[in-house]
Amino acid sequence: MSNQIKVVLTEDEIPRQWYNIQADLSHPLPPPLGPDGKPVTPAMLEKVFPANMLPQEFATERWIDIPEGILEKLYLWRPAPLFRARALEKALGTPAKIYYKNEGFSPAGSHKPNTSVAQAWYNKEFGIKRLTTETGAGQWGSALAFACALFGLKCRVYMVRISFDQKPFRKLMMQAWGAECLPSPSENTAFGRKVLEDDMDTPGSLGIAISEAIEDCVSSKDTRYSLGSVLNHVLMHQTIIGLEAKKQMAKINEYPDVVIGCAGGGSNFAGLAFPFLADKMAGKNLRVVAVEPAACPTLTKGPFVYDHGDCAGMTPLLAMHSLGHTFVPKPIHAGGLRYHGMAPLVSHVLREGLIEASALHQVECYTSAVQWARTEGFIPAPETSHAIAQVVREANRAKEEGKERVILFNWSGHGLMDLTGYDNFLQGHLHDYHLTDEDMKKSLASLEGLPKPPPLK
Amino acid sequence: MSNQIKVVLTEDEIPRQWYNIQADLSHPLPPPLGPDGKPVTPAMLEKVFPANMLPQEFATERWIDIPEGILEKLYLWRPAPLFRARALEKALGTPAKIYYKNEGFSPAGSHKPNTSVAQAWYNKEFGIKRLTTETGAGQWGSALAFACALFGLKCRVYMVRISFDQKPFRKLMMQAWGAECLPSPSENTAFGRKVLEDDMDTPGSLGIAISEAIEDCVSSKDTRYSLGSVLNHVLMHQTIIGLEAKKQMAKINEYPDVVIGCAGGGSNFAGLAFPFLADKMAGKNLRVVAVEPAACPTLTKGPFVYDHGDCAGMTPLLAMHSLGHTFVPKPIHAGGLRYHGMAPLVSHVLREGLIEASALHQVECYTSAVQWARTEGFIPAPETSHAIAQVVREANRAKEEGKERVILFNWSGHGLMDLTGYDNFLQGHLHDYHLTDEDMKKSLASLEGLPKPPPLK
Repeated sequence: MSNQIKVVLTEDEIPRQWYNIQADLSHPLPPPLGPDGKPVTPAMLEKVFPANMLPQEFATERWIDIPEGILEKLYLWRPAPLFRARALEKALGTPAKIYYKNEGFSPAGSHKPNTSVAQAWYNKEFGIKRLTTETGAGQWGSALAFACALFGLKCRVYMVRISFDQKPFRKLMMQAWGAECLPSPSENTAFGRKVLEDDMDTPGSLGIAISEAIEDCVSSKDTRYSLGSVLNHVLMHQTIIGLEAKKQMAKINEYPDVVIGCAGGGSNFAGLAFPFLADKMAGKNLRVVAVEPAACPTLTKGPFVYDHGDCAGMTPLLAMHSLGHTFVPKPIHAGGLRYHGMAPLVSHVLREGLIEASALHQVECYTSAVQWARTEGFIPAPETSHAIAQVVREANRAKEEGKERVILFNWSGHGLMDLTGYDNFLQGHLHDYHLTDEDMKKSLASLEGLPKPPPLK
Repeated sequence: MSNQIKVVLTEDEIPRQWYNIQADLSHPLPPPLGPDGKPVTPAMLEKVFPANMLPQEFATERWIDIPEGILEKLYLWRPAPLFRARALEKALGTPAKIYYKNEGFSPAGSHKPNTSVAQAWYNKEFGIKRLTTETGAGQWGSALAFACALFGLKCRVYMVRISFDQKPFRKLMMQAWGAECLPSPSENTAFGRKVLEDDMDTPGSLGIAISEAIEDCVSSKDTRYSLGSVLNHVLMHQTIIGLEAKKQMAKINEYPDVVIGCAGGGSNFAGLAFPFLADKMAGKNLRVVAVEPAACPTLTKGPFVYDHGDCAGMTPLLAMHSLGHTFVPKPIHAGGLRYHGMAPLVSHVLREGLIEASALHQVECYTSAVQWARTEGFIPAPETSHAIAQVVREANRAKEEGKERVILFNWSGHGLMDLTGYDNFLQGHLHDYHLTDEDMKKSLASLEGLPKPPPLK
């Protein structure tokens, strides 16, 4: 076609190994710490994650084989096409070339199944019968429900009560795949009952839901817990995105000047960016930008600390950028970006100076999302709109500077389940949330008394 | 991969011509008739359809070139992969091989954009500024809104009021793409006002909405009307599905014994089936099955007659299987299959003995849809579930007979916007609607006094 807009890979070209960035870091990742302040060992996590997958969390080898049983299922929507957004380029009048990986073709509509399928497969292989997890807006819960259906595992999802009530369709997706979806806090766990006792009308939070899912897991037979972001192995499962993108860019003799992804827990960003960071660590010149919501500015305003992954303080301490585990993000539509912390690996590469971070407000993001839908066609998820808004900024800067620039970003998922945000925006009802110093101070206080990560040598 | 489940085509292999089945019919299609009972000429339709596309409706040449400007946009989700449903085969324990074209990857989530993009392009080329259309459940309205956004056309969709109220998300999709979506009947047209005068609380109907969209079109400047199914040119635009499928089956040295598609207006069925019917007309041995809802059994119970395409009787008379233009189908979830008539070309090939028809109830269809989602992953639209249920029947028959059989069907779209039906089904609230003889008799009475199509010679 005269106007090539899509680069596809064949079956033979699908990556057969994940990239583990831990092999290439110039400083090692500070280890997770247990309640005693000592590094957590794999053995300590064996009641939570299957022992056949756990080594991945601590692995330092560069490449880890993707089992055939996982590839076979990923192949339903992978390799994912790389597109060039020519219509948007034209609308912006920019000399920049904008490329994107479209992760919206998976059955759950986002990049999440890249890891949910992998995790479900390892659990199945290990003889596990049932997985528990938590979900906020529902993207992760539906991705895990889908994966469990493929492998015949039972699945229970604790969904933050306010989302459970406000977003019934994500719950229906999970149920269509045979999963059980409970509003959290629930009567199902001791922790849930305790929270309900204190406040019958609580809207719930991701932190409460994590605590319930872990309690359910450790107190049940043949059950493990599954997390959709933040941890090392989860980010590694997503690197298939960036590995495909590198092959695709090479096919058209391009290499990105800027790589962009939105970042909540960090998995879709890392999935695209880490394989490119490998080149950067080897001397290649490129910028890599993580985009977060200004209402939850973990990377741009949160200190690098040891903090819990959940609000209740049940998880090990992770060395990461965090706003404090009691931080409750304002109700922006990008539910997947409402997390108080950031993946240790993403936090670490920011600290090493390998990436930049940008914090954007949601009205700007929706403006870009609507422009995207009306030029490029696919309606983006509110999370994805953060990456798009940054792309538009970069493309406009290229225009001002009169420079051709190659931009690559991760189009992490479609917004068909999140149309209410578009409605609010188009009706002019959407507004931005500004984080006050007082809010920050309050949640940062929850970090007091926790150990500090060692300085970079 | 050891277990191949997907056949992809490269950019070079995308079909560059549509297949026009009119070239190969052994009897010519009876022409559409005007109010005077005489054949309608292209010139009479020029206020409704753009004159540069109209010849396609009457064309008899076998191949019609697809313009580059259309291919470029189709390329966003085409060529669509051909999958083998190995997990379902295994679950059914069938010796049959089940292949399907996945049309759910388009931005609107169904096969509809194959024609909406083509129609919008022709209108744009012809200098038209605005399109009107009607929509029931919203699949077509959203597909046209998407296409109009790509080409910078204005778009107004008259959406059946009950769907407008009950399915707000389809409306939000259209709005995200910049289209205007009005509940029909509306105050916007003389016909709509008349209907509202008679009954303020009417739920509306597709027939009313068509009448409003046509009235809006013919009374406005630079405006044309667009239809999502039924007509010859619409079905032809969909043949890209079957043309791709033939190439894909050939790549793996397979040829279907049975080709299956669900049929409401007939476009997704024809899109897959017509290129295979070309082989059948040339002597190839295969079965082709159109699947309709038992609650709206046009092909299996409707006579072959001349009837109007809309309830108000504003359209030309079409020679087709019809239950009578006053037939109001019961509220099954598969809104896209609730149409009183059937595409003249699909009706014609049934009459010529080239295809079979099957009518299924929705509980059986949802049972198969859930089994599909839990084995193959992608959640099907309620329309698509009719094709799946027929596939399951055929696969079970192959098992009983102990015969390997190659089944190919059209997976016409995803069900992410239609999850309420799954909820009703899973909660055991779904029931079947049985068409009574009295209902049939009543609506068939609306055919009285209309001309009769000539018998096949």
